[in-house]
Amino acid sequence: LSRIAYVNGRYVPHAEAAVHVEDRGYQFADGVYEVIAVHRSVLVDEKGHMDRLDWSLGELDIAWPMTPRAMGTVMGEVVRRNRIRDGIVYLQVTRGVAPRNHEFPANAEAAVVMTARRIRPFNVETNSQGIDVITVDDIRWKRCDIKTISLLPNVLMKEQAARAGAYEAWMVDGEGQVTEGTSTNAWIVTKDGDLVTRQTDNKILSGITRAAVMEAAQSAGIEFTERSFTVDEAKTAREAFLTSTTLFVKPVVRVDGEAIGNGHIGTLTARLLDLYSAHMDGQGSGKDSAA
Amino acid sequence: LSRIAYVNGRYVPHAEAAVHVEDRGYQFADGVYEVIAVHRSVLVDEKGHMDRLDWSLGELDIAWPMTPRAMGTVMGEVVRRNRIRDGIVYLQVTRGVAPRNHEFPANAEAAVVMTARRIRPFNVETNSQGIDVITVDDIRWKRCDIKTISLLPNVLMKEQAARAGAYEAWMVDGEGQVTEGTSTNAWIVTKDGDLVTRQTDNKILSGITRAAVMEAAQSAGIEFTERSFTVDEAKTAREAFLTSTTLFVKPVVRVDGEAIGNGHIGTLTARLLDLYSAHMDGQGSGKDSAA
Repeated sequence: LSRIAYVNGRYVPHAEAAVHVEDRGYQFADGVYEVIAVHRSVLVDEKGHMDRLDWSLGELDIAWPMTPRAMGTVMGEVVRRNRIRDGIVYLQVTRGVAPRNHEFPANAEAAVVMTARRIRPFNVETNSQGIDVITVDDIRWKRCDIKTISLLPNVLMKEQAARAGAYEAWMVDGEGQVTEGTSTNAWIVTKDGDLVTRQTDNKILSGITRAAVMEAAQSAGIEFTERSFTVDEAKTAREAFLTSTTLFVKPVVRVDGEAIGNGHIGTLTARLLDLYSAHMDGQGSGKDSAA
Repeated sequence: LSRIAYVNGRYVPHAEAAVHVEDRGYQFADGVYEVIAVHRSVLVDEKGHMDRLDWSLGELDIAWPMTPRAMGTVMGEVVRRNRIRDGIVYLQVTRGVAPRNHEFPANAEAAVVMTARRIRPFNVETNSQGIDVITVDDIRWKRCDIKTISLLPNVLMKEQAARAGAYEAWMVDGEGQVTEGTSTNAWIVTKDGDLVTRQTDNKILSGITRAAVMEAAQSAGIEFTERSFTVDEAKTAREAFLTSTTLFVKPVVRVDGEAIGNGHIGTLTARLLDLYSAHMDGQGSGKDSAA
């Protein structure tokens, strides 16, 4: 099977998927993106992702390059052409091609690129295995609520984690509070048993998986608090985990090398992972087609 | 004349200059750049730009894709093929193409793109015409000393300036101090007559034109201080100007709508513009070929 990408209206072989060097995404990081999970051929939380894309585009004043409905159709087609049952769709919208000047060009047409790839099917047992995080100074800009491709800070901090043998870096703001991971949201169960994740504001991205987990918790009568927490609270937490489109609910078993709980997935984390698993299974009314 | 771009080892027509959608410059803003002026067919301050590129690449741990000398040859060739006597060379180096993951890929080869375009020849009289700046909250990340393509914040602030009818936005940090413009360095002559530009640290880019102006000032016995200054100092300044590769020494005659001096280029600014003009004329021993 040869991979197919969608680039500005055309489905092309992955190797030939190219954009102009003056695409503002390439010269200015002037664009936004989404990563959407495909679970049993269904796009998970498609509406949530499209709503967030709408927010990101709006904040950058980029017009939708097609209707959200048409984008759904293209996503479905990319999934189909790449024969993906379990995987992800990556989609990127930039302000388009224009001679290089910082300010918005008068007549650029937004560019759309979509790729997809398989990942191993979601499995509760595999996903229960914990990972390490380190903490780093949050060096990012002041609008982390927009899901932009201006990701170099995240890249540098993720690389720092990788070199430390950790999976993720939890970023810490000037007040010593954890903001989020470089590509994930951060959660803890405090030593007193409170389920906590940071409130959304311009310091973190409003995660779609984060929202789904909150909703699932609420439905199950599990209380949680949206507030910031310190590195010390994280290190002394009973449980910790992160949420993201590709990691779902993933236990964190060490923070800066210090063991969290007993080093295995915590009780509440396991319950939330089960609830999220059910949430994914319930997508698209369980039908085996893209929503 | 059809424009020619250099893309990863090949000289191609501008319209066909393309990079893969998984070039990390496009997905992560994982790259750096330089803009170099061409004055009478000579690259202005080529060594300064190559030294800064070396700094930027080093901070991102990207290996030089070719020697600085070879890069000089390619720049000269791009200038020649585009028949540029007065203009700019834009060059961009990214970490290269790799499947999308935040951390550095194991085996990516850095990608190099170069374009060039003509601009109207430098002219002291034209360049003496003043422009407006506005002041905005500096929303950027904490490593503005690296010349990266992660420029979305700069784009947004430059657009804000354009919508306010100004040419540039001077960014103001949390302490009320001006850092720099979105693509230029900021200078003032205080009401007491002190020539001031901000010290270099991780809040501003170490401008090549800024350095050339400082050197020219020093040679001419003009004193200056490298320190941060407030918006209020800027608004009550006797003179103000900005420096950049494409604007050289450019008078600022209004800050947030308030006139600076008498609304025309100031005496010291004019002198520095003359000195910078001489600096450019003295490049490459005045020979009419790319350095």
